[in-house]
Amino acid sequence: MRDAQALPALPDATHDPALLSWVPDANRHADFPIQNLPFGIFTPPGQDVPRGGVAIGASILDLAAAHHAGLFTGAAEIAAAAASREELNAFLALGATPRRALRTRLSAILAAGSRDQHTAERCLHPAADCTLRLPARIGGYTDFYVGIHHATNVGRVFRPDNPLLPNYKYVPIGYHGRASSVRASGTRVRRPKGQLKVPDAEAPRFAPCERLDYELELGIWIGPGNALGTPVPMGEAEHHVAGYCLLNDWSARDIQAWEYQPLGPFLSKNFGSTISAWIVTPEALAPFRMPQPARPEGDPPPLPYLLDEADQCQGALGVVLEALILTADMRKKGLPPYRLSRSNTCHMYWTVAQMVAHHTSGGCDLNPGDLLGSGTISAPEPGGFGSLLEITRGGKDPVALPSGETRRFLEDGDEIILRARAERQGAASIGFGECRARILPAA
Amino acid sequence: MRDAQALPALPDATHDPALLSWVPDANRHADFPIQNLPFGIFTPPGQDVPRGGVAIGASILDLAAAHHAGLFTGAAEIAAAAASREELNAFLALGATPRRALRTRLSAILAAGSRDQHTAERCLHPAADCTLRLPARIGGYTDFYVGIHHATNVGRVFRPDNPLLPNYKYVPIGYHGRASSVRASGTRVRRPKGQLKVPDAEAPRFAPCERLDYELELGIWIGPGNALGTPVPMGEAEHHVAGYCLLNDWSARDIQAWEYQPLGPFLSKNFGSTISAWIVTPEALAPFRMPQPARPEGDPPPLPYLLDEADQCQGALGVVLEALILTADMRKKGLPPYRLSRSNTCHMYWTVAQMVAHHTSGGCDLNPGDLLGSGTISAPEPGGFGSLLEITRGGKDPVALPSGETRRFLEDGDEIILRARAERQGAASIGFGECRARILPAA
Repeated sequence: MRDAQALPALPDATHDPALLSWVPDANRHADFPIQNLPFGIFTPPGQDVPRGGVAIGASILDLAAAHHAGLFTGAAEIAAAAASREELNAFLALGATPRRALRTRLSAILAAGSRDQHTAERCLHPAADCTLRLPARIGGYTDFYVGIHHATNVGRVFRPDNPLLPNYKYVPIGYHGRASSVRASGTRVRRPKGQLKVPDAEAPRFAPCERLDYELELGIWIGPGNALGTPVPMGEAEHHVAGYCLLNDWSARDIQAWEYQPLGPFLSKNFGSTISAWIVTPEALAPFRMPQPARPEGDPPPLPYLLDEADQCQGALGVVLEALILTADMRKKGLPPYRLSRSNTCHMYWTVAQMVAHHTSGGCDLNPGDLLGSGTISAPEPGGFGSLLEITRGGKDPVALPSGETRRFLEDGDEIILRARAERQGAASIGFGECRARILPAA
Repeated sequence: MRDAQALPALPDATHDPALLSWVPDANRHADFPIQNLPFGIFTPPGQDVPRGGVAIGASILDLAAAHHAGLFTGAAEIAAAAASREELNAFLALGATPRRALRTRLSAILAAGSRDQHTAERCLHPAADCTLRLPARIGGYTDFYVGIHHATNVGRVFRPDNPLLPNYKYVPIGYHGRASSVRASGTRVRRPKGQLKVPDAEAPRFAPCERLDYELELGIWIGPGNALGTPVPMGEAEHHVAGYCLLNDWSARDIQAWEYQPLGPFLSKNFGSTISAWIVTPEALAPFRMPQPARPEGDPPPLPYLLDEADQCQGALGVVLEALILTADMRKKGLPPYRLSRSNTCHMYWTVAQMVAHHTSGGCDLNPGDLLGSGTISAPEPGGFGSLLEITRGGKDPVALPSGETRRFLEDGDEIILRARAERQGAASIGFGECRARILPAA
């Protein structure tokens, strides 16, 4: 624990851990106390039209209704109007200033003692009665590979002699994923069929994936973005980050091993990806920023286009990430989900700003609602590995579950639940909401 | 030349080579005679709102205006209404039946002797005065690698001992490209900067690409598409193809060589891709279908999910593809573009139907307006190579141009022009229009 006197100051009053909300359960809520205020798209019970909302405790504040009720003025009103639509792309495009104004105003509306309580109460829905949607239309989805312990662990399985390739410490490695198959938490994922080839087989066969895996990742929502041909320099990169989520990059390891050379993963990933439905803002996570961990002795410094003093000082994030499993048998026996992985975003070798600057460094455009994935974030120690490929060493060491079952890879009916928690001394801890999905049998 | 009696019959009267149009120049037009009728999005002179149009000779028929003038009924009217909007996604989503009805009706309207000539004349614009746009909002862009001679040639540069990897003849290799940076013909392309590392350098440096290349590809526009989790079987795959274009998949070879392991090309491709602006329909290309070329002796047959009798019989396309260069010096000297590559779509190892079936085989969804690229299509012989990487053997053998210049890779001010021509005895030949763009210096 850091000494209390050495704690960095909280960014503003919206983070005050003493701040309480009048919304029932908000002050006891692990993920969504008043210090969080994440944005999402939901459909209230009995209604068809999705609209923007803010999670507060076990409730959702309907932004369209609150806007209509006249609760916002100025920059906050502009942001609330943009966030009232059927998707949050226009809101993400606004950038930090209106988003901050809206946060400040929402904090005041929802704080205990607010004179707007009576009006706002009529805009609240119990979250349990609502359906959560994808928060934005995802134009482009790029998955990075910045979890260095994951890259090392996986590299060891695919390339035992050469786990970490020579470019890894120079290039924030990434590739284009499939945006169309990203779904919000709760949508079931069908096990893919594909070409499987065991090393000693003469030819591949087409069959349901036998090595289905999860990947524990941080998702990054892009805000304003850049024009084609106009790179975003490091010093401006954070301006284009509109928020964060959890991302489960489901992976068919057997399909991947056979298909991925020379152009990378394709069908092994594009059958589906799951994200948590709430966009946790950079403002909410501001107290959990930290210096970029020192590179190990002997690692090269980032090239100048990826180097920025402010980013070195506070470009990393300290957020605990967890992956849990709940099998059909565990559900039947009433057992709670079992934790497979506990990691932390501080294990990213490259910061989010470096990912944005690199992505645009050749001129590629990023646009509001684009999604970046961090790649699997594993902690260095066992118990911290973010995928079964790593935990079971490619299926060699099955993991034992409290139900008496074992898992090398995922089975039909298994549910994977990702959770995140940001906490530090002197600040209210916040979470991301669940990123959860269950595996359906192959068609 | 095939014997005239053995020529396959033309699909319908819209292909009759004797059919003439009343539109000036249409009957002499290399690309857009009345037998073609491709769809696109254009802005007429002095107007702001893009709308759908059909290329006929050197003119564009304004579909919104023609629809408004009452020229369509029934299924053709449904298609014309969908094609009148600012992007063709809704039209692509309709599938073949309304598209065919619209083609039949357009052929009648534009045919010499049509009683609708007077009405339709008022809906024509000179193409030279119009601005062509991207024909659809591209949701997802996937680039394949089905040009087997290209895969072999390139494999030899990157992996001399192992040019064609073991999966190539089983898997239609593809990867997700960047949809946001695809632009219509005519938009200039800025040379990217990126990490370059020559093999004997200790570290990479960040600098303008020194090995900028083009790639000669066929583009495929997706029509109706499929729901996530519901693969498209081979027998239905063609139903989801709404048309074709030319695609220049600009490639930064030096960036690519350093970044592409282990997750594939990223910044080496996503700075920009150029497509021809007209969607040439499957109907227009029907006379140029051909049997899938026999696989070389010893090659494995496609796995059952990629095998279909009709596809074997007529799933391939015979379209001549060309890439030409025009340098700043050639422009100054008034020299015509110089042909670098002359290839043919018959050199695709996998058919378009196989690409669609494979893409969806694990459950991934395709959607109206998605774009597939074939990958570079090289012919086996020199003169048929579809990229400078192949032509100059990785820069070793510069190509001599009529201006007295040489090129290992592209220089600033160079323009690459892709063209396509479908021709066979007994049918009117058609083209795709140009896919052209000029290289701007790095920023």
